[in-house]
Amino acid sequence: MLSRFFSLRRQAVSSSFLAEKLSYVRDASWSYNLVSERGISTAGSERSSGKAFADFSIFKGKAALLMSPVPPTFTKMDSGHQRVDKKGVILLKFIPAIGQRKYDSERKQFFALSATEVGCLISLGPDESCEFFHDPSMKSSLEGQVKKTLTISPLNDGGGYMFNLSVMNAVQKTNERFTLPVTKAEFSVMRTACGFVLPLIMGWDRVIGPHLDRTGHGPPEQSAIKMDPDLEWER
Amino acid sequence: MLSRFFSLRRQAVSSSFLAEKLSYVRDASWSYNLVSERGISTAGSERSSGKAFADFSIFKGKAALLMSPVPPTFTKMDSGHQRVDKKGVILLKFIPAIGQRKYDSERKQFFALSATEVGCLISLGPDESCEFFHDPSMKSSLEGQVKKTLTISPLNDGGGYMFNLSVMNAVQKTNERFTLPVTKAEFSVMRTACGFVLPLIMGWDRVIGPHLDRTGHGPPEQSAIKMDPDLEWER
Amino acid sequence: MLSRFFSLRRQAVSSSFLAEKLSYVRDASWSYNLVSERGISTAGSERSSGKAFADFSIFKGKAALLMSPVPPTFTKMDSGHQRVDKKGVILLKFIPAIGQRKYDSERKQFFALSATEVGCLISLGPDESCEFFHDPSMKSSLEGQVKKTLTISPLNDGGGYMFNLSVMNAVQKTNERFTLPVTKAEFSVMRTACGFVLPLIMGWDRVIGPHLDRTGHGPPEQSAIKMDPDLEWER
Amino acid sequence: MLSRFFSLRRQAVSSSFLAEKLSYVRDASWSYNLVSERGISTAGSERSSGKAFADFSIFKGKAALLMSPVPPTFTKMDSGHQRVDKKGVILLKFIPAIGQRKYDSERKQFFALSATEVGCLISLGPDESCEFFHDPSMKSSLEGQVKKTLTISPLNDGGGYMFNLSVMNAVQKTNERFTLPVTKAEFSVMRTACGFVLPLIMGWDRVIGPHLDRTGHGPPEQSAIKMDPDLEWER
Repeated sequence: MLSRFFSLRRQAVSSSFLAEKLSYVRDASWSYNLVSERGISTAGSERSSGKAFADFSIFKGKAALLMSPVPPTFTKMDSGHQRVDKKGVILLKFIPAIGQRKYDSERKQFFALSATEVGCLISLGPDESCEFFHDPSMKSSLEGQVKKTLTISPLNDGGGYMFNLSVMNAVQKTNERFTLPVTKAEFSVMRTACGFVLPLIMGWDRVIGPHLDRTGHGPPEQSAIKMDPDLEWER
Repeated sequence: MLSRFFSLRRQAVSSSFLAEKLSYVRDASWSYNLVSERGISTAGSERSSGKAFADFSIFKGKAALLMSPVPPTFTKMDSGHQRVDKKGVILLKFIPAIGQRKYDSERKQFFALSATEVGCLISLGPDESCEFFHDPSMKSSLEGQVKKTLTISPLNDGGGYMFNLSVMNAVQKTNERFTLPVTKAEFSVMRTACGFVLPLIMGWDRVIGPHLDRTGHGPPEQSAIKMDPDLEWER
Repeated sequence: MLSRFFSLRRQAVSSSFLAEKLSYVRDASWSYNLVSERGISTAGSERSSGKAFADFSIFKGKAALLMSPVPPTFTKMDSGHQRVDKKGVILLKFIPAIGQRKYDSERKQFFALSATEVGCLISLGPDESCEFFHDPSMKSSLEGQVKKTLTISPLNDGGGYMFNLSVMNAVQKTNERFTLPVTKAEFSVMRTACGFVLPLIMGWDRVIGPHLDRTGHGPPEQSAIKMDPDLEWER
Repeated sequence: MLSRFFSLRRQAVSSSFLAEKLSYVRDASWSYNLVSERGISTAGSERSSGKAFADFSIFKGKAALLMSPVPPTFTKMDSGHQRVDKKGVILLKFIPAIGQRKYDSERKQFFALSATEVGCLISLGPDESCEFFHDPSMKSSLEGQVKKTLTISPLNDGGGYMFNLSVMNAVQKTNERFTLPVTKAEFSVMRTACGFVLPLIMGWDRVIGPHLDRTGHGPPEQSAIKMDPDLEWER
């Protein structure tokens, strides 16, 4: 337990820089927000309806890691119903350090975890590792030019994991590496928060969930009647 | 851990077909949606109020498995209150493969998991198996003609499960079999998503939950006064 | 694993009476609803705003167990804010069997689990037992006349628990006993559903939760400013 | 198991004082509410919109512990979107006992747990300890004058933890200590309730969650299109 004690002391100490770091996070997530705002600049006035940005951010010596969920997108069908168009993800943003508690937002790299990759993350055992490969240009003529590899492997001091991201660019002949130790406590936040959003990035809260108006004999129940076990039985 | 590493490589590779597969899922869930729309075609304009469809889908060599929740249905009582009429389920749809990443939606089979069967699924230990028997014609004159058996048993490589569905039809003299290996990561998604919807298919989010308007001295509190420990104490 | 297999067969078979049982549950919960409606008969027309009843019900040879959550009640303060008046509970209703799949709703007994008792239930290890004592007349002149004892102890076949409720009435010289085996799958439903409602019976979803309107610079944030770490720091 | 049995008996007995204690809690949280209301006295009429207070409270021989969540605060950006300004916390309030079931609310001490500290709390193994250091005057000229140390260490009887808070004031030359045994059942409530609010104090329910209006082709989906894997792919 002593090692754990010390590792927590270290965490406690590092957390004494929290205020300063947070102010930096605001800067970082500000430019981050600008990106996404550009993305939605055509969306009109409804945009001011309280769309929010919130990261879980970890700042370490060599790099920072910002994690945030991305909702799924839905397509409206002629019937007026909707079905998932693009599934949601949990977006990881790695930012390299360029000095003591200074991080270069220009050189950030993204890695988007799918539902199954999130499932792998939150079910990792204490001694287990996992590795994910992404090709941003998949199915395009550029396929294979850029290779991203995320490896999550256990730390020696109980319970934490080392996050390694490598981004190889065959054209630019570059290979960027990000290395970030995640404590057991930080990983527990990831596990809990990812478990909370996993059904939401799958869009299940739209199929069934408190946000549905289910008062009275609503259509959801009507349709459910056709979808319930009878559907199976009637075959 | 090496075996795990490799199994994850395999997963990573297979996930490089994700885009294509998803487009196929859209086709599949499209016809799927049509079914349920027919079911609710009489429900009128409120239908366009954002009813949504979202599956968790797994595509393997011999079959595909699509999983999605089905809300419970409620009956309005003279009092204006509601009680559960039909309990919700988690619907499994098995589709046989008819070629490389081609699946025949016409030959799909459903299996609807009850709350207790979901409880069994999400509490499965690493070495445990479970088996469910359904008779779609239960309590009818056709009872026993069709027998469905779903078996979930552990895979050798750490953490995954094999899903086996057998549908025996004594009249048509057919016995369809679906076999699908589910990785630990995929099962973790099932476990998390099923844990999220379990209270919702039971309808508990209607009895107590954020979607209830609980501002001020609302009736829920009034009724709760009669239902709280005093109810026990006053006996 | 074989024993588990068999126990699941038994469950599967018993589940083939599900339809019949459910129809019975409807009868049971109907009278149940009447009770609670009488309790709220003065609550007026708002009552028709979709208050719902939903049990998790287990029917066994000697008794039935119906479990359902009860929301907390809140008191409005002069400030217009609210604070918890009565904490919510999870209500257990035991009904004795009087024949094959017949249960005598007249002889039901209630046992209301507090948040901490729910915490004990959901954290029970495979070999652990727990025992709760309630005195409905606590702090009244009748204190000690009626003693309720709920004991939950592990079953031999892996993962299930035996629920025992004893209600001793010193005045009527009666001692009613209810004994109910709960399978691992059924207990997993209890654990998951109780975990879902635990924060809600504590009223935490009113302090912080999706149902709060948090758009714009809302008062919740204003007050949070006074309640956040600065409150600690400023001391 | 016997020791556990006895510990639970003790708990059951102590719970027979629940009613009295709760009435006391109401007194305590009343003054507590006054504090926070003063904090928001300028917030205007919207305040009556159902802001609520709810603690999880534990009353022991030497001290009482009240736990409650504090939502994050958001800053509106020119774009109309919002980003987290101050992260939420889980606030611990320690009150010393001054007699049998009497607690001196004037001498209370606060300790605010950050998301990562909550992550540490809920992932504590049965034999693990953790320790947190806070300096309320951090980054001010008074830095180091007051030192708060919260230590959580396992109890000998299975599953509980001892909470120790020490508040050293170098100026007032005082060192207040609070010691509180938390049973396994009580800690299970903490773990479950903290797991429920952790994503909420991070503000993730604002980024993605049922409380978002996601009907139709809403902007959240629009923006998501820019944030989803394509963002990664397009780099």
